[in-house]
Amino acid sequence: LLSDSNARLAAARGLTSSRGRRETGRFLAEGPQAVREALRRPDLVVELFATAAGLAKHAELLEPARSAGVPVDEVSDKAAAGLSETVTPQGLVAVCNRFTRSLAQVLAHEPKLVVALVGANDPGNAGTILRTADAAGADAVIFTGNSVDPYNGKCVRASAGSLFHVGIAVVDDPAEVLTAAAGAGLLTFATTGAGAIDLDQLDLAPPTLWLFGNEARGLPEDVLQAAGVRVRVPIYGRAESLNLASAAAVCLYASARAQRP
Amino acid sequence: LLSDSNARLAAARGLTSSRGRRETGRFLAEGPQAVREALRRPDLVVELFATAAGLAKHAELLEPARSAGVPVDEVSDKAAAGLSETVTPQGLVAVCNRFTRSLAQVLAHEPKLVVALVGANDPGNAGTILRTADAAGADAVIFTGNSVDPYNGKCVRASAGSLFHVGIAVVDDPAEVLTAAAGAGLLTFATTGAGAIDLDQLDLAPPTLWLFGNEARGLPEDVLQAAGVRVRVPIYGRAESLNLASAAAVCLYASARAQRP
Repeated sequence: LLSDSNARLAAARGLTSSRGRRETGRFLAEGPQAVREALRRPDLVVELFATAAGLAKHAELLEPARSAGVPVDEVSDKAAAGLSETVTPQGLVAVCNRFTRSLAQVLAHEPKLVVALVGANDPGNAGTILRTADAAGADAVIFTGNSVDPYNGKCVRASAGSLFHVGIAVVDDPAEVLTAAAGAGLLTFATTGAGAIDLDQLDLAPPTLWLFGNEARGLPEDVLQAAGVRVRVPIYGRAESLNLASAAAVCLYASARAQRP
Repeated sequence: LLSDSNARLAAARGLTSSRGRRETGRFLAEGPQAVREALRRPDLVVELFATAAGLAKHAELLEPARSAGVPVDEVSDKAAAGLSETVTPQGLVAVCNRFTRSLAQVLAHEPKLVVALVGANDPGNAGTILRTADAAGADAVIFTGNSVDPYNGKCVRASAGSLFHVGIAVVDDPAEVLTAAAGAGLLTFATTGAGAIDLDQLDLAPPTLWLFGNEARGLPEDVLQAAGVRVRVPIYGRAESLNLASAAAVCLYASARAQRP
């Protein structure tokens, strides 16, 4: 059992902050699903911390960890809770290396379906969109315009393992994303309640970059201007709008359906 | 300014618990959007509590409240936080009467699109599904099989006002919902990862009841057996499944699209 004041444990605790993750290039993946997916990728997991209960419950993960040369240490319930950004700590946390790629890398292999989050700041929404993008067969999710850190604990958790499946890039300037997307042959569809074109009227078969904005403010005006088409998800009832992750699910599944024969 | 120990304030605080809501038939609607929608329905709002900042920021809501004969009382920031189930209290909370209808009532007028949540227990997901159901033009959302209380503060908040737009029924036994839906001429589509029929293969034009299950366990076996069709939302990538609210968005928008000419 590691002491609660162990130095590696203290360093891991620092990864619950965005700054700690940025400075070290590492992040935390909590819970059996995230840890399992992380262990499937080579050289991603640095070390694994687990409570006695976590070790007993998820014994099937110990063998892949050991064969990958990943140290596994038992920690107290209190220490595990200190590594958790969720209400119910899972008793199992992996310290991982970030694996963000460049914009050029995620757009390199003739992508058909790509998502850009522009200023999205709810980590739960971002993680849910990662999961939906993966389910819809998207190639990559690009975080831009001061969006939430994709390696935020709540985002990792909400992605339910999909963080490890899709290409991820973090790009400061949305204009750079639009230029690169055009260069990669992607149409750019910007979602906005004030969009001139209804989702159901679009030809969704061509390779597409979907742009989703901030939960409250939507997409910035310059991004709306620069995007190819401004698209409205139709509202048939009395709701003012859809939740960001729900709107993304409707758009990405419409694309996935249209892009398949 | 009401004292923090005021009796009406104490009674309102009791509505942050499911038991308090059940025993009094009341619930709390927090924030300007929910309060605005609640005030639009007659006899729904019992009283309104607001902080000084809340009163100043949302002055446009005071006139409708007063003309509806709804008492408005200023409370301290601490008292307002005590009425809040969210991380960032909004400084504006309405005490409302529950307005749940019977199963017969929500199915009375030839409904075309109805949702049943069976054992869904995440209030954020439930509220997001209420919002999506409203946006997709659904007639009603039925909470059954020990689903979360629709008047839970987090559910009210996530519904973004849509709680006040769609018919809501709470029914203990899912079997009763299936029988009533059949009687109302609805096809019943049960969503499950193991569904034999792909969403894209279904004729979604007829009047439909969509069944969504628990976030972790899905729908109970007896409900799956009794439902007309077991439907799978296709997974094109490597995700194991979709988030419940994202799956609901994909299904409900597919129905809304198919039911319109």
